[in-house]
Amino acid sequence: MPPPYKRHVFVCTNRRPEGNPKGCCASKGAEEVRAAFKEEMDKRGLKGGMRANAAGCLDTCAFGVAVVVYPEGTWYGGVKVEDVPEIVDQHLVNGRPVERLMMPFSRKEKAGS
Amino acid sequence: MPPPYKRHVFVCTNRRPEGNPKGCCASKGAEEVRAAFKEEMDKRGLKGGMRANAAGCLDTCAFGVAVVVYPEGTWYGGVKVEDVPEIVDQHLVNGRPVERLMMPFSRKEKAGS
Repeated sequence: MPPPYKRHVFVCTNRRPEGNPKGCCASKGAEEVRAAFKEEMDKRGLKGGMRANAAGCLDTCAFGVAVVVYPEGTWYGGVKVEDVPEIVDQHLVNGRPVERLMMPFSRKEKAGS
Repeated sequence: MPPPYKRHVFVCTNRRPEGNPKGCCASKGAEEVRAAFKEEMDKRGLKGGMRANAAGCLDTCAFGVAVVVYPEGTWYGGVKVEDVPEIVDQHLVNGRPVERLMMPFSRKEKAGS
């Protein structure tokens, strides 16, 4: 009975048909990003206490690959496989969200809080 | 640019092949539950401030249809279409999670907190 998770990561893996003007996270490498989260979590023995979940459309298509981390509600955009170790180490393990990868509204919220 | 959401609802819509011993939320009506969340949110003018998201497997298959609400991290199990208005009114709008529908670990956490 694994949850509740200390941190629950949702990666948008939505796929739209080729040529859709909105684009989609799947075409930008979302499955690879999710696999990287799982792998980096496993490497650090975090499995069970955290989860890298697939999600349907997170409605932030312009910022794909889109990732949201709860319970903080930190939104990351344009996430690439090579960004994942930094998010895992700095945010998931040490609780310091990675400013440079946040979506604009997530940054603004933090700045204003 | 809609998020951050006041409440972000994830409904497991994972489908496993027929006959898989774990079962799956999809075969228990997960898509209908998600549609009901969207409809009840729309009816109450909550669209934009909240979101009913599809999710991949939430790893709580024994309790499907599985739903988790963030930022609280409240886990609901065995959710049926007819439960959705109560969750929307009582929890999403009024901030009082629906105890009778919580998964056991979610109840225990609340009781111990």
